[in-house]
Amino acid sequence: MRVVVDAMGAEKGVGIVVRGVLGAIQENSQIEVSIVGSREKINREIKKLNVPSPPFSIVSASQIVTMNDSATTVLKKKDSSIAVALDMVKNGRAQAFVSAGNTGAVMAASLLKLGRIRGVNRPCLAAVFPTLNEKKVVLLDVGANVDCKPVHLFQFALMGSIYAHKVLKKRQPRVALLNIGSEENKGNDLLIETFKLLKSSSLNFVGNIEGKDIISGKVEVVVCDGFVGNVILKFAERFASTTLNIVRKKAKRSFLGLGGLLSRGWLKEISSSLDYAEYGGVPLLGINGICIIAHGASSSKAIKNAILVSFEFNKMGVNKDIEDALLRIQEVEDGYEKN
Amino acid sequence: MRVVVDAMGAEKGVGIVVRGVLGAIQENSQIEVSIVGSREKINREIKKLNVPSPPFSIVSASQIVTMNDSATTVLKKKDSSIAVALDMVKNGRAQAFVSAGNTGAVMAASLLKLGRIRGVNRPCLAAVFPTLNEKKVVLLDVGANVDCKPVHLFQFALMGSIYAHKVLKKRQPRVALLNIGSEENKGNDLLIETFKLLKSSSLNFVGNIEGKDIISGKVEVVVCDGFVGNVILKFAERFASTTLNIVRKKAKRSFLGLGGLLSRGWLKEISSSLDYAEYGGVPLLGINGICIIAHGASSSKAIKNAILVSFEFNKMGVNKDIEDALLRIQEVEDGYEKN
Repeated sequence: MRVVVDAMGAEKGVGIVVRGVLGAIQENSQIEVSIVGSREKINREIKKLNVPSPPFSIVSASQIVTMNDSATTVLKKKDSSIAVALDMVKNGRAQAFVSAGNTGAVMAASLLKLGRIRGVNRPCLAAVFPTLNEKKVVLLDVGANVDCKPVHLFQFALMGSIYAHKVLKKRQPRVALLNIGSEENKGNDLLIETFKLLKSSSLNFVGNIEGKDIISGKVEVVVCDGFVGNVILKFAERFASTTLNIVRKKAKRSFLGLGGLLSRGWLKEISSSLDYAEYGGVPLLGINGICIIAHGASSSKAIKNAILVSFEFNKMGVNKDIEDALLRIQEVEDGYEKN
Repeated sequence: MRVVVDAMGAEKGVGIVVRGVLGAIQENSQIEVSIVGSREKINREIKKLNVPSPPFSIVSASQIVTMNDSATTVLKKKDSSIAVALDMVKNGRAQAFVSAGNTGAVMAASLLKLGRIRGVNRPCLAAVFPTLNEKKVVLLDVGANVDCKPVHLFQFALMGSIYAHKVLKKRQPRVALLNIGSEENKGNDLLIETFKLLKSSSLNFVGNIEGKDIISGKVEVVVCDGFVGNVILKFAERFASTTLNIVRKKAKRSFLGLGGLLSRGWLKEISSSLDYAEYGGVPLLGINGICIIAHGASSSKAIKNAILVSFEFNKMGVNKDIEDALLRIQEVEDGYEKN
């Protein structure tokens, strides 16, 4: 399996990406990687890292889509790392794309070049959150769709459930609808209608949950529209990282010397469970291909994790499952219509 | 000024409320209080606290609206503490109402008994969040209105701005619209239209902000619909309290003995800045009266703070300012129509 990795998107530079790629290959020898971007910059990093024969190939791309570019810029920058990489997936030269670049641009280009899985109305972004009991939860959509209809939210639930099952290895993932109360009749028309769709589906739907239960570990999949999900994701990231900084600072000030040494262990423990940027990227679900968007501020560990996730995604046939599930629903609906 | 306080709503019991009331009266001698609820239970707490002549009056109410009751139950339970207390505000026997009870019920009863301020389309709930730089921000609406129109969001901004100015003492509070990007054209039609209304208003509108900046301290007022606000509020409360517990537990385990003593200081510091339940309750803005809803899990400190906030609310004439501001806008609009 070949993963094509965008060298140019990470805020912390090309070196982070190269190190992440090396880490992934070391951890899983079945993964082959092509890195796309400025050959010069990539080679410079290889030299720095002192890797005599790099275990990946380099594909040149002369343009860069910056974080400030609009989503559609990528359509004009035909030799950008994002465009070149997605062409490779489209042509079957790679099976997955990993980028820490401009999310809007990656989404737009993926949709244009790869298209949607048959039956999917709207692709969506699925964020994996650490829960407070050290498990994981998939929150989706986190930003692809601002306005949604019940069928969209239903499809997010279905795709999130398959992802949680296949990639996060959760059996019969519990699916919940994010709402302002747990009762069936809570929320607006969109939520009440979506509740009905989910309740009558074969998903392991456990009902509405409130904001406080997103990361309580009670469920494995939380469904919401892309506006709410995006706000929550960004709020949580900032909240976690800043809380952590405050704790670190105050702990350090109090425990100079011996205490400082003692505190290192548990601070590290808390850090890793709160560091949302480490969680291996956000898959774009519903696209006819594999596309994992890593955080702009990704570390090499985050890039490595995103590549490993893309491998699981491919190996477990997530997209085939999504297509089959939607086909089955369509057949049932067609059956109803005939009768 | 007289504040009427609901004795029956706090999850931690009547004693919490009585202690909160005593604390508020001690801190501000201009405040008079009536506690409403079961006279027997209130007297039992007074005895426990060994207060020979309580500095507040007791008003009997035989019924209780529980957390599980629907919002409209309060309309049937005419002798509930909520209903009796709001009647006192309505009849001018008290100037403000503080309750840690069922939020939906308090909202419904307030709207029915006190009505709206002239010009207000929809009352809303305004939560005060601690920011990461130890300031405060008003987030509204946090749950009164699931579906909103641009004019509603605009009025929330206006009311939030007056509240931040008068009660939180922020000069020219910076107002932002919660969105999924900072550009003017981000979000759905509701947000794009609201952006225009805010931009052309006399408010100190600084544009869109993302989820990550809600508590960054860049702005004093953040506007969103009640669905998004409610999800954020509940997520933040749970996230903060659980993070704190994790830190406490791990710190304790590492620092038995001397370390435990050392860590107490900064843990307490972090606790108070993260404890969202302490922030003096959520005012219901736009109601023709003063109504502060404290967290169900309030401590006596939270009840005390809510009472002190209600005093400021009254003293600073928040409702008069809201009415005047809306009247001015109406006059300008009428002027446009005439010309």
